[in-house]
Amino acid sequence: MSDKIIGVDIGGTSIKLALFDSSGIVSKKWSIPTNCKDKGVHIPYEIVDSIERKFDETGTSLDELSGIGIGVPGPVDESQVKRAVNLGWDNFPLKQIVEQKLRVPVALLNDANAAALGEFWQGSAEQLKDIVFITVGTGVGGGIIVNGQIVNGHHSSGGEIGHIPVKSAEKRVCGCGNLNCLECYGSASGMVKTMNQLAGTTLVSDTKELFELVKIGNPFARETLNVTIDYLARALSGILNTLDPEELVIGGGVSEAGSLFIDPLKNALEQYVFPQIRDGLQVRRASLGNDAGVYGAAYQIIEILKMIPV
Amino acid sequence: MSDKIIGVDIGGTSIKLALFDSSGIVSKKWSIPTNCKDKGVHIPYEIVDSIERKFDETGTSLDELSGIGIGVPGPVDESQVKRAVNLGWDNFPLKQIVEQKLRVPVALLNDANAAALGEFWQGSAEQLKDIVFITVGTGVGGGIIVNGQIVNGHHSSGGEIGHIPVKSAEKRVCGCGNLNCLECYGSASGMVKTMNQLAGTTLVSDTKELFELVKIGNPFARETLNVTIDYLARALSGILNTLDPEELVIGGGVSEAGSLFIDPLKNALEQYVFPQIRDGLQVRRASLGNDAGVYGAAYQIIEILKMIPV
Repeated sequence: MSDKIIGVDIGGTSIKLALFDSSGIVSKKWSIPTNCKDKGVHIPYEIVDSIERKFDETGTSLDELSGIGIGVPGPVDESQVKRAVNLGWDNFPLKQIVEQKLRVPVALLNDANAAALGEFWQGSAEQLKDIVFITVGTGVGGGIIVNGQIVNGHHSSGGEIGHIPVKSAEKRVCGCGNLNCLECYGSASGMVKTMNQLAGTTLVSDTKELFELVKIGNPFARETLNVTIDYLARALSGILNTLDPEELVIGGGVSEAGSLFIDPLKNALEQYVFPQIRDGLQVRRASLGNDAGVYGAAYQIIEILKMIPV
Repeated sequence: MSDKIIGVDIGGTSIKLALFDSSGIVSKKWSIPTNCKDKGVHIPYEIVDSIERKFDETGTSLDELSGIGIGVPGPVDESQVKRAVNLGWDNFPLKQIVEQKLRVPVALLNDANAAALGEFWQGSAEQLKDIVFITVGTGVGGGIIVNGQIVNGHHSSGGEIGHIPVKSAEKRVCGCGNLNCLECYGSASGMVKTMNQLAGTTLVSDTKELFELVKIGNPFARETLNVTIDYLARALSGILNTLDPEELVIGGGVSEAGSLFIDPLKNALEQYVFPQIRDGLQVRRASLGNDAGVYGAAYQIIEILKMIPV
């Protein structure tokens, strides 16, 4: 019987893999380094090798494998990775190579979308259909789930909420080329920049240090948190007032500050979200951490396999 | 054979009705006044009467009617109208009454969502699946279509894009109770307010007058247009960067100013929309005008009827 699924999450430094059964139980989790040499051409073969070796080690036949889901740091469409700058990929046939080597269906998805699906699938006690997921870390990303399905978008850019424009007296240029995207202010690096600007000197180098200063009441750190939260809450309210989802899930490195970050964000949302939407909205911190991506990748291929006639 | 469909669009002063065949061709359009007496209890019966009379007049048997879609100025769920302040309705059983009287399935939808579906169905030459619709008139409303379906939302407030928060030095209180919603600035009344504030006197009483002044180069009118467009473009970019749809459709009274309004809005969007999304995005003016609602209401019931086993 073939009921094994592999979820893969490709990051800039490591590739996470996990072996699931079709009911979603994980039996193995492991990772390999990301080999970006030669514009990333070795990556698909190293993923295949690693999967073959893991099946071999555990005495499982590859015939039991029924599909693979892969989360990628860049936009994807149904057939290929459109771009993954950190890996050196441009219209890269990841899906085709892995499918050819392992002879099972492969589903591609963007990494933030994979994390959103993971949280949707395994992160919450209830079975919800509509959630908005935001990840606040080095950058700001997101995943939008409507009716149980990820919104990948017409140009594979659904959930690019880090690029929502914000209004600021400053001008920060975003990596995308636009001015004053949410990511320039709401991300970890944006917060550090705001903090050091307010202090007039390099007081902190990461958000961990910044939150330590928030705890002891440093006025620059508190002001930075207030300003950052306001940017995030305004942008999120725009999304919530558009989609009226059941739940908002907040993940990413900055969310690890816990209630120090989540509580003021919830308060700011109270102010901006449409009253009818606000009243029943659940806001929670992501619960799968770094594993969210492999869960979501596995979920995606499980859902696709359900639609393939046996 | 029963293949006739009725689309209804209930407004504050009149109720529009149209008779369709199941392929979407309109054979009759008419309207009746909205009778708000006695908290709107007469409305469902007057709709039923008017439909019966129209069938009678045209010598068509009511057996040919297979379903009715009704757009309502307020939030609805699958079974009832949750609220329609202008009509006096609160948890009102519109669907039940009309179904009982005419013995055909009735579908309810919010009026802005109905307009969005109408534009989606008949407004564009191509068959699109994902569109964002905004209506800029007395208020600002919208409808979000993902995968061919309206996003009604978990609290029946999907598409409430008039309540996206905007950043302003002013404080305008919105009807919803929040401060500085998009509608306070981006609507026709918001524009008129901004204009008269800038001019320091009541120069205009509606947007028609305002656009006349824009045409002749009045500096207050031009500044009002710039400011308003900026608010709208920022909020819309937030939506577009979240959903990456195929098309943005702009309707409502203010859109009747045509290129005077649409062109600067397109230009402002260029500045704020994520480059990958911007490049293939279609932006167009709504093409069905006041008929969009009856089209969308008819479409909704046609889609529902398809799912009912014969």
